[in-house]
Amino acid sequence: METMYWEDRCLKLLDQTQLPSKTVYLECTDYHDVMQSIKRLSVRGAPAIGASAAYGLVIGALSEEHLNQTTFIKKIEDIAREIASTRPTAVNLQWALERMLARVHSSHARDTAGIISDMLEEAHKIFNEDVEGNKQMGQHGLNLIPHGARILTHCNAGALATAGYGTALGVIRAAHEKGLDISVYADETRPLLQGARLTAWEMMQENIPVTIITDNMAGYLMYKGMVDIVIVGADRIAANGDVANKIGTYSVAVLAKQHNIPFYVAAPMSTIDFKLGSGSQIPIEEREWHEVTGLAGQAVAPEGVRVWNPAFDVTPSDLVTAIITDKGIARSPYAQGLAALK
Amino acid sequence: METMYWEDRCLKLLDQTQLPSKTVYLECTDYHDVMQSIKRLSVRGAPAIGASAAYGLVIGALSEEHLNQTTFIKKIEDIAREIASTRPTAVNLQWALERMLARVHSSHARDTAGIISDMLEEAHKIFNEDVEGNKQMGQHGLNLIPHGARILTHCNAGALATAGYGTALGVIRAAHEKGLDISVYADETRPLLQGARLTAWEMMQENIPVTIITDNMAGYLMYKGMVDIVIVGADRIAANGDVANKIGTYSVAVLAKQHNIPFYVAAPMSTIDFKLGSGSQIPIEEREWHEVTGLAGQAVAPEGVRVWNPAFDVTPSDLVTAIITDKGIARSPYAQGLAALK
Repeated sequence: METMYWEDRCLKLLDQTQLPSKTVYLECTDYHDVMQSIKRLSVRGAPAIGASAAYGLVIGALSEEHLNQTTFIKKIEDIAREIASTRPTAVNLQWALERMLARVHSSHARDTAGIISDMLEEAHKIFNEDVEGNKQMGQHGLNLIPHGARILTHCNAGALATAGYGTALGVIRAAHEKGLDISVYADETRPLLQGARLTAWEMMQENIPVTIITDNMAGYLMYKGMVDIVIVGADRIAANGDVANKIGTYSVAVLAKQHNIPFYVAAPMSTIDFKLGSGSQIPIEEREWHEVTGLAGQAVAPEGVRVWNPAFDVTPSDLVTAIITDKGIARSPYAQGLAALK
Repeated sequence: METMYWEDRCLKLLDQTQLPSKTVYLECTDYHDVMQSIKRLSVRGAPAIGASAAYGLVIGALSEEHLNQTTFIKKIEDIAREIASTRPTAVNLQWALERMLARVHSSHARDTAGIISDMLEEAHKIFNEDVEGNKQMGQHGLNLIPHGARILTHCNAGALATAGYGTALGVIRAAHEKGLDISVYADETRPLLQGARLTAWEMMQENIPVTIITDNMAGYLMYKGMVDIVIVGADRIAANGDVANKIGTYSVAVLAKQHNIPFYVAAPMSTIDFKLGSGSQIPIEEREWHEVTGLAGQAVAPEGVRVWNPAFDVTPSDLVTAIITDKGIARSPYAQGLAALK
């Protein structure tokens, strides 16, 4: 199943809010559809957000094809800014849009149709390079996975969070494909249950043994000696190796440290924000209260109760055993380790 | 609102599975009704389970009043064993039933009706002493609460978990009544959301400021410096101070330690199992998979997925800053500290 695909001037996006019970593709023919899909998490996961934003910009450009070239380019820059504003934490969003704009500015096309054609080519490249990068990441990550490893993961850093194959789950897939006899524990990942809904589903599709736990069971699972390694994805990594990822990642990292369990982060180089010196500079999105007080339309808390709902947290790099990228593995000190992979 | 009350040979139990949206009292006229209510968590929380079990035994006795005294007592012992089997972790269940049987055996009543009358008196005593003990616990605990404290709690250790007033929430209530300007963060406490449904509701009833978070936000909340102390209840405490409590308590304790935040446990002396040397001997109940894969009747995970669902975990005493009881406060070394309060 594809997270997204391009067909006939339209981006088809798998609506992940409806998984696993329903498989519905949203047809985005207006860039506002793509923005809406990113905002409401129909598409989520840093690399998938980046790829969908790139296609979203192509869709925006298509509707402005009639403009003269200078106005057209100015308009595309405006649309890129608009799309970039949908979610603040995942840096791949900005990264993909900047890459698209660079392609626009360097285009030798003679008309707007030609520029759009170049843009679509670039969006496809972003998409395809992501899948390819994830497979390389899987091969690098393999070296860290012992035979029979029981692996805890948080949220969904799988095929659904990327153009395909996945980051954290890409490493897990590679280990499974190599016959390493691994098994997976998936934190359900409240409030939106990406672990229970998406990670469990992806693993079951490939017959990788998976067990769901609620987020608050991770500590006791480690205490009972039932976890060998932790692998998670990332939404943005600062130059010093601090990792912003789905809320709850920090707790898992602290618990892993307490139990001497390696804590690995898998992410493409596009997730590393070399402009930020540390994680404290990463903007953390806070989302609406009803994600916490309700579930599938059911109220699970008293009406009017106050809620705190940060969508991400920051894990300091001293809790990270290694960062697995498409270019290789970085270890502490990360400022040097990550820069060396650039 | 009463967690339970006795009226006309019947135990009225507030059905906590329906809170906060509905306030429904179950009418238990058969001890199997009480057992069922304990099993399905209509009544939950160690002290409340103890009190309801005591009343349940009275109900069982009422239906055997016609027997001769020897057969009657044997039958009551059988019923007590049956009720004791409903849930394994909370020691107050056994404690209350043993106390009831001791009263039966020491009764000077001349007939079964007289014994039943003694039993009912004992059940009322267990109930009333629990409320009274919680208020004393609140007064002892007050000394640990700084002015303006932002207090994190897990699950529900409130009036609803006890005969009234609460253990952890009893301390919070006492602090609020004294005007200490405290505020509360409530972990929602998956899978059954006792924090979001019950703790938030109790706090709102008394205008104590409360904010709900998902369980996986607790670490980041501490990291951001937004928590001053943690207070939780307990289902069973071993003689060495190891604490069995709702799943997720251990994770919170590890996180509190990491952030140098005091971690307090509030529980009546009836929760301390002096027969157990350490927490590893405490039986941990594992509950059914559908508590994790569903929520309010909605499926939140793929069909057929494997689940691990321990209802409790054990927090080693070295993570516990102090244990607040109705008899005073114990600190490490707990073997001595707790024994001194006996």
